[in-house]
Amino acid sequence: MKKMEQLYEGKAKKVFKTDDENLYIVDYKDDATAFNGLKKGQIAGKGVVNNKMSNFLMQIMEKNGIPTHFVEEISDRETVVKRVEIVPLEVIIRNIAAGSFSKRFGVEEGKKLNCTTLEYCLKNDDLGDPMINDYQIIAIGAATKEDLDTIADLTFKVNDVLKAYFESINIELVDFKIEFGKTPDGQIILADEISPDTCRLWDATTHEKLDKDRFRRDMGNVEEAYAEVFKRLGL
Amino acid sequence: MKKMEQLYEGKAKKVFKTDDENLYIVDYKDDATAFNGLKKGQIAGKGVVNNKMSNFLMQIMEKNGIPTHFVEEISDRETVVKRVEIVPLEVIIRNIAAGSFSKRFGVEEGKKLNCTTLEYCLKNDDLGDPMINDYQIIAIGAATKEDLDTIADLTFKVNDVLKAYFESINIELVDFKIEFGKTPDGQIILADEISPDTCRLWDATTHEKLDKDRFRRDMGNVEEAYAEVFKRLGL
Ligand SMILES: Nc1ncnc2c1ncn2[C@@H]1O[C@H](COP(=O)(O)OP(=O)(O)OP(=O)(O)O)[C@@H](O)[C@H]1O
Ligand SMILES: Nc1ncnc2c1ncn2[C@@H]1O[C@H](COP(=O)(O)OP(=O)(O)OP(=O)(O)O)[C@@H](O)[C@H]1O
Ligand SMILES: [Mg+2]
Ligand SMILES: [Mg+2]
Repeated sequence: MKKMEQLYEGKAKKVFKTDDENLYIVDYKDDATAFNGLKKGQIAGKGVVNNKMSNFLMQIMEKNGIPTHFVEEISDRETVVKRVEIVPLEVIIRNIAAGSFSKRFGVEEGKKLNCTTLEYCLKNDDLGDPMINDYQIIAIGAATKEDLDTIADLTFKVNDVLKAYFESINIELVDFKIEFGKTPDGQIILADEISPDTCRLWDATTHEKLDKDRFRRDMGNVEEAYAEVFKRLGL
Repeated sequence: MKKMEQLYEGKAKKVFKTDDENLYIVDYKDDATAFNGLKKGQIAGKGVVNNKMSNFLMQIMEKNGIPTHFVEEISDRETVVKRVEIVPLEVIIRNIAAGSFSKRFGVEEGKKLNCTTLEYCLKNDDLGDPMINDYQIIAIGAATKEDLDTIADLTFKVNDVLKAYFESINIELVDFKIEFGKTPDGQIILADEISPDTCRLWDATTHEKLDKDRFRRDMGNVEEAYAEVFKRLGL
């Protein structure tokens, strides 16, 4: 496996080509951003935590029948993944009201919802990643009905597995954002990352926040929170 | 039928109690607002047009098996309707991209969509009527799954009937907003109004706007546009 030219530098990761046209290498940075890039900073050690945590959880997903892009961890910050074309949607599950949901609908943060919600946001920084529904996604051609149905099914499965896993280490899975991609042969698989950057994780006993909200809201002890999750995962 | 005390004064209509506890009288005003009340004005004669047009179209809906709140027109501006508890949702159908859809998703106004879209906004002025999906509606208890399914079915039917009707008078039905209510015995029926305030109507040949966008966008000839639709409906 040879790391070739950089394809893309995102806010949290760099993506590189390799000498295998079906594989990429992602390289996790310590850079942190919030509010669509308006707030910028660094969280020391975050790249290592997110890389290893994401790989660990992706492998749990695989064991539970959810196909993922994970191939092989090659360093503390670098992982080989399957090349996909990312479906331009942020796929969000919420078990408990928090963040933009609370603000948008006037629901107190921490309120248990009548049901788990699934929502999509269109991945488009210029438009501010607007929320979008199934009809609208199909109407503008961002994904097909078939792909959306697969994505919804897989996402609820991810929630079931992830929620149970976090419960076992005394963490409440409040909400999370995932991304899916399409392989060259048309399969929809889980891609991107699962980390404290992309999940809201609360200590189940104290409700202490163990995720990027500590950075977003200037709560302090950001590195410690990432390290705590890392430790509880046994990593 | 006796008109009793005013229950509510909205931006476009007043609602009165009657001596029959299951009936209300709505009284259509000439007041026009846009952008969640930020822009205010008057459109001379609008109250009459909207009252008569809405009643005419509600009766076409009834003939096509869609239950509505319409009971009886009692004056140019006043109509007796069934009392309902309004489901706190704006129910929106779009056949062609325009307005907030175009802005939100960066789709050129006038573009024919791959499919007709249905979307909901939570009726809450303080929150700015945010878009909301089925899961979220159920999660916050704004409506039940059963009611939503009924509303979606009825709304697509309304679109089919309304679109065909407007086509017959050379008008393109671009999009519309409707509201549903629940009768005391639990039936979901079409309520509120169907008018150039709540529909985007374009002349099918010239694409000239014949609706409230003329007011929203200061295009002039607002009264004339309402009168033109009124005339084409044979009213
Ligand atoms: N397996 C994969 N194949 C191709 N691209 C991927 C894969 N997994 C993740 N990506 C994409 O790589 C980029 C990762 O970078 P990062 O998370 O830093 O992006 P970002 O700043 O969040 O920007 P974006 O808005 O594009 O997601 C994202 O665009 C993500 O969608
Ligand atoms: N059959 C009905 N029974 C009870 N209320 C109704 C019925 N039909 C419409 N309404 C309600 O009456 C009010 C009509 O007033 P108007 O359209 O002027 O309100 P508005 O300014 O748009 O305010 P809102 O945001 O409450 O809809 C609305 O709140 C509407 O939902
Ligand atoms: Mg990202
Ligand atoms: Mg109204």
